Amino acid sequence: MNGRPSGTFAGVDFGGTKIAAVLADERGSILAEGVIPTQSNSGPSQAVRRTCKLLEDLCRDHSVDYHAIGIGLPGLVDRETGTIVFLPNLPEDWRGFPIAREFASYTGKPVALLNDARMATLGEFTFGSGRGSRDMLFVTVGTGIGGGLVLDGKLRFGAYGAAGEIGHHTILPEGALCSCGSHGCLETLVSGPALAAAGRELVSAGRAPILREVVLGDPDKVTTTLMAEAAIKGDTAVGDAIRQAAEYLGIGVANAVTITAVENVVIGGGLSALGDLLLDPIRRVVSERVRMFPPQCIRISCSSLGVKSGALGGVVLAAQKFA
Amino acid sequence: MNGRPSGTFAGVDFGGTKIAAVLADERGSILAEGVIPTQSNSGPSQAVRRTCKLLEDLCRDHSVDYHAIGIGLPGLVDRETGTIVFLPNLPEDWRGFPIAREFASYTGKPVALLNDARMATLGEFTFGSGRGSRDMLFVTVGTGIGGGLVLDGKLRFGAYGAAGEIGHHTILPEGALCSCGSHGCLETLVSGPALAAAGRELVSAGRAPILREVVLGDPDKVTTTLMAEAAIKGDTAVGDAIRQAAEYLGIGVANAVTITAVENVVIGGGLSALGDLLLDPIRRVVSERVRMFPPQCIRISCSSLGVKSGALGGVVLAAQKFA
Repeated sequence: MNGRPSGTFAGVDFGGTKIAAVLADERGSILAEGVIPTQSNSGPSQAVRRTCKLLEDLCRDHSVDYHAIGIGLPGLVDRETGTIVFLPNLPEDWRGFPIAREFASYTGKPVALLNDARMATLGEFTFGSGRGSRDMLFVTVGTGIGGGLVLDGKLRFGAYGAAGEIGHHTILPEGALCSCGSHGCLETLVSGPALAAAGRELVSAGRAPILREVVLGDPDKVTTTLMAEAAIKGDTAVGDAIRQAAEYLGIGVANAVTITAVENVVIGGGLSALGDLLLDPIRRVVSERVRMFPPQCIRISCSSLGVKSGALGGVVLAAQKFA
Repeated sequence: MNGRPSGTFAGVDFGGTKIAAVLADERGSILAEGVIPTQSNSGPSQAVRRTCKLLEDLCRDHSVDYHAIGIGLPGLVDRETGTIVFLPNLPEDWRGFPIAREFASYTGKPVALLNDARMATLGEFTFGSGRGSRDMLFVTVGTGIGGGLVLDGKLRFGAYGAAGEIGHHTILPEGALCSCGSHGCLETLVSGPALAAAGRELVSAGRAPILREVVLGDPDKVTTTLMAEAAIKGDTAVGDAIRQAAEYLGIGVANAVTITAVENVVIGGGLSALGDLLLDPIRRVVSERVRMFPPQCIRISCSSLGVKSGALGGVVLAAQKFA
């Protein structure tokens, strides 16, 4: 042990498929990190036990200890009772599970819970693309769309800690049914799987010759990253599909910016790998639709922490609550 | 003089047609009030002089004095320099006018400026339908749509003090050109004049027999209040027109609630006179579209201060800054 557990915190990012953990200090320097599969079907107890084992191993292998744990979960958590209220992407038996208590009883450490997108917002604001700004809208685009708002330097919680759910505001009132039960949400129009599906269709229909080459003729090999590669090489239809998704994202960002007047927008999640292919249309749409103050005030960039924003946000959460 | 100017403040609400002023104490008890026409074409200096004369008269007639002034203007103001940045509903020569300095030099009192909708938000939060709540979204629907956000007990400013501009977020991406330069803003879909115009058309087309009777056959006499009367008496087409406007407003409210997770929504401005005809469809749409937390958490009501929310907000503004 290095004898300074009080300045070291654990961050744990629970996803539908993977659990990522880091041990880091309050400045965000990572001392140890690891990833295990979620195996959500084995139930939450199992997952907690395996995560605690991972933390134990990280401590032993890197001769560190930690003071408290911040945990992010893909859904609604009750921060007061430390239980899971609603996790759309995990099996039913996770609901109501006293996850904070279980973690605390295995590790003997204090535990704080948060929605995973809000936790990533904390990480990105403190150590990533939000560093030094007063406000930040974080939008994470992957399987779904999550988000978080930092206003005047503080993460906004609001009712049920749900502030920042930009993926579930209406873009097309008569649009498709969303998994949330509403219609025409931003999430129905933009997501990693939806964009990849559009790419597969273009390959199958013979309308994306370069993408077809990139995936060696196999539509099932299409990913959004390979679509970006094909678009940059000149595959027009693929570029159009990316641009259309980015434009909808731009409308969503413009709406959140108009309503909250945040000046700093950070895009994270898998789709942020598209870089300027994604950012340029977003910036254009935002400058067309945000008219209440000069659009040049608004900085729009990609996450600089990438997949680590969540776990590092857990470190911030634990430090804020227990340092 | 009653010898307690330190606990009394002036609130001035500058509108495109009227200027309303109140003198009130910090608890919102009105000691004196008055209204004068704006006469915006005579220029801002004239308007300031006449407003200062009004305040002087109110003080003399009611034997009171006041400590500081809070002023609301229908546009963007630079709170630091006390100048007008942009006032869409007032003539060009108002722009850049050092209105705070002028008021201060006439009255000898300290002056604070704010956008009028944000000022009304302060009034409604402190003395009206927002009293006792932590968060509030205020939406004022009249000629246009203004708004303001109180989050965790504090009025949100954001970039250029523009937070809360719900009227200029996109509801229909391919919708009509808005006065702000964007397309399909909430304000293009809902406003007092637009609703009255729809009522006039229904009368002219012979599709609103009851409203026709109410306005004695003269479409030019149609107001939104008379439309409400006709709708309550059973004029179906008029009721439909009101409901459609309310439903769009409901989508806008649902979007702001989903993004910020505020639990308390207050509707003000002229259209709030429609009462439940407006609130019922808003409540229904919000419960259909806000899916990130239980919609029963969300309280939606009309302004309880009515036209006085602005001037009383000026009292709050002045008290917060100079008490």
